[in-house]
Amino acid sequence: MDVELVTVGTELLLGFTLDTNAAELARALAGVGVRVARRVSVGDDEAEIRSAVAGALERTGFVVLTGGLGPTSDDVTKRAVAALFDAPLELDEAYLAQMERRFRSFRRGSVPASNRSQAEIPRGADVLPNPRGTAPGLWLSGGPGTAVMLPGVPHEMRGLLEEQVLPRVAALLSERGEVPTTRSRTLRTTGITESGLQDALGALEASLAPVRLAYLPQGIGVDLRLTVWGLPHAAAERELTRAVEALLPALGRHFYGEGEADLAAVVLDRLAARGWTLAVAESCTGGMIGARITAIAGSSRVFRGGVICYADESKVRDLGVPEALIRSEGAVSEQVARAMAAGVARRFGTEASVAVTGIAGPSGGSEEKPVGTVWIAVRAGEQERALGRRFPGGRREVRRRSTQAALDLLRRLVEG
Amino acid sequence: MDVELVTVGTELLLGFTLDTNAAELARALAGVGVRVARRVSVGDDEAEIRSAVAGALERTGFVVLTGGLGPTSDDVTKRAVAALFDAPLELDEAYLAQMERRFRSFRRGSVPASNRSQAEIPRGADVLPNPRGTAPGLWLSGGPGTAVMLPGVPHEMRGLLEEQVLPRVAALLSERGEVPTTRSRTLRTTGITESGLQDALGALEASLAPVRLAYLPQGIGVDLRLTVWGLPHAAAERELTRAVEALLPALGRHFYGEGEADLAAVVLDRLAARGWTLAVAESCTGGMIGARITAIAGSSRVFRGGVICYADESKVRDLGVPEALIRSEGAVSEQVARAMAAGVARRFGTEASVAVTGIAGPSGGSEEKPVGTVWIAVRAGEQERALGRRFPGGRREVRRRSTQAALDLLRRLVEG
Repeated sequence: MDVELVTVGTELLLGFTLDTNAAELARALAGVGVRVARRVSVGDDEAEIRSAVAGALERTGFVVLTGGLGPTSDDVTKRAVAALFDAPLELDEAYLAQMERRFRSFRRGSVPASNRSQAEIPRGADVLPNPRGTAPGLWLSGGPGTAVMLPGVPHEMRGLLEEQVLPRVAALLSERGEVPTTRSRTLRTTGITESGLQDALGALEASLAPVRLAYLPQGIGVDLRLTVWGLPHAAAERELTRAVEALLPALGRHFYGEGEADLAAVVLDRLAARGWTLAVAESCTGGMIGARITAIAGSSRVFRGGVICYADESKVRDLGVPEALIRSEGAVSEQVARAMAAGVARRFGTEASVAVTGIAGPSGGSEEKPVGTVWIAVRAGEQERALGRRFPGGRREVRRRSTQAALDLLRRLVEG
Repeated sequence: MDVELVTVGTELLLGFTLDTNAAELARALAGVGVRVARRVSVGDDEAEIRSAVAGALERTGFVVLTGGLGPTSDDVTKRAVAALFDAPLELDEAYLAQMERRFRSFRRGSVPASNRSQAEIPRGADVLPNPRGTAPGLWLSGGPGTAVMLPGVPHEMRGLLEEQVLPRVAALLSERGEVPTTRSRTLRTTGITESGLQDALGALEASLAPVRLAYLPQGIGVDLRLTVWGLPHAAAERELTRAVEALLPALGRHFYGEGEADLAAVVLDRLAARGWTLAVAESCTGGMIGARITAIAGSSRVFRGGVICYADESKVRDLGVPEALIRSEGAVSEQVARAMAAGVARRFGTEASVAVTGIAGPSGGSEEKPVGTVWIAVRAGEQERALGRRFPGGRREVRRRSTQAALDLLRRLVEG
């Protein structure tokens, strides 16, 4: 089964917005065995949308659209598609009532006039409920084929995709007796460069066929994507398993998880397994490590909190770093990082801790300690480790890399 | 002048690669006054490429392609386009000699057979030199129109775009007597929904012509993009200024900056202007506010640090929140948020502070305080303010929205 994607928004044509929705749709559809044959982006223009959708339906009979379902005057997707299917827009009273309840529950009064247009549904379309926003998804089948319309707000699109679209597409495929055609797995690594990985795996690559290997550098690590095309489900899974088993020994400790695995979640799991708790002391990362950790649901079973000791007096006052040590070694030094890690573990009464101090730039560098110089210290149980790095890149990259390296150092220490 | 973009690569259809080339091309072309009418992505398939390019040329007569110019068997862009223009591929001896020199200079021996195909040029095409790689750009004009082919490697594409394509396009425009046609400005707002904005601005919209207004919801605010097409530079700027002046009074305090303005940077500027310093107390945001603030270079002139008081005992021990208050009101309450803000300002000796406590979910909600319930308190000088919200969305959205709302509440308090 082939589909085409049509993403709607003048923004996409001005280049200010990356088309992440199309990428996410493509990945998800490939995952259930649907091939995306073409992606098209057009502006908020009814004639352009109609022309793009007509072309897509002619070629594949199935099109998924995102964007242009909002309440404002430039949201014209629904009108364009409805015209193509000869399906007049009609007010859906049940959906409007649902919107009324929603607005009341968030204490925003009654539904504004502009939002009422979102309750107008092309005749014959299925309404796909969108608990995250006011624009419902729409599934319209008819003469020209099937058009699925989703809102452009990424988390609303994602919710509808997972909860509504993928199950319907899977059901459709099984009705037609089709088998998935693309299977892939992703191995995540950190602490090794792309060329380092290539050197480690190059000799193995040929033996992995029919599995194909792609190196996907993420800035804070490299993902390895393994893909098989055109095999039945079970055979594809077998080939992927064989390839993963061949690769893992070569990856060693650089491998930390599969798929969407988050390094922070891996660290929390390792600590939870030992019954240990965690605190953080952050200078140049300014809260990023805490933010990564608390992004994980359930992190409170391990994470107690921390100190953002951006100013040096906080390192002294809140973490007990000796003032003399900062004067003699500098705030960015192994000794101060170790004292921060010890101090925050003491204050929060935790078995584990992470501390980072560094020069993120653009200013603050010196000949001896240039921008990018970072010291990390971690503690876990009786053990302690420190690591000095000089990261390339600007402020943003230095901070992201510091955060990742700190979590990774703790992972390696806890894994023993 | 309208163009269409065709990006080639099966990776783009699998969704693992974001189409940054198309976004970059679109931005650059808009900058010299060319409107991108449509973007299309197709796989490494000769028939698909030919069909997409034929459609684009039919509609606009001008297409820019990226990708599929590499040395491997799946690189078929050149063949597809050459067939469409009836322009046979011919070995370009001069280009081959240049490749030979290049390979020798990088000590990679002579040109491998696979790379020799890159010296085959459609008859009549201009070769656009690519000093960063082995695939030259190609500019082919003929019966169907003009097709510009660029390699898919982003930094090679960018180099060719800047050095070769944009100057040629600008020359073409001036030959045709056309003037740059796209100018835009962005007004950033927060604290108001897309439909709220539409209700506030709807009556004004018509009077802004020829300026067109687009509403861009960002989850944590709505950007308003104002765009003018088809006017000379000075007239376009005049129209944009007039439109901005008409909009600003209607936006009121919801407006916080233009273009890429960051709310955290705006807050830091406002505080710096008063000579005030800042500390944060973060529970459910777990460091995100500190991370946003310290992302701004130079934040240390205002920001002192803070406490990530994820566990309640940290709220008591580190911020002096009375334990009895947490017991009677709950950790997520106006009183506790206010006590956190006061406590962190006291500890860090700052004039300003922000505190957030909330239930980000997925667990921890109750009937009285469902997931999404958040209390924010801010202090600045002698003033103090608190705000209770119930944010929609999952853990990620609740935390992002809490961070933004906290920064925004402080901005409004400091702006007075």
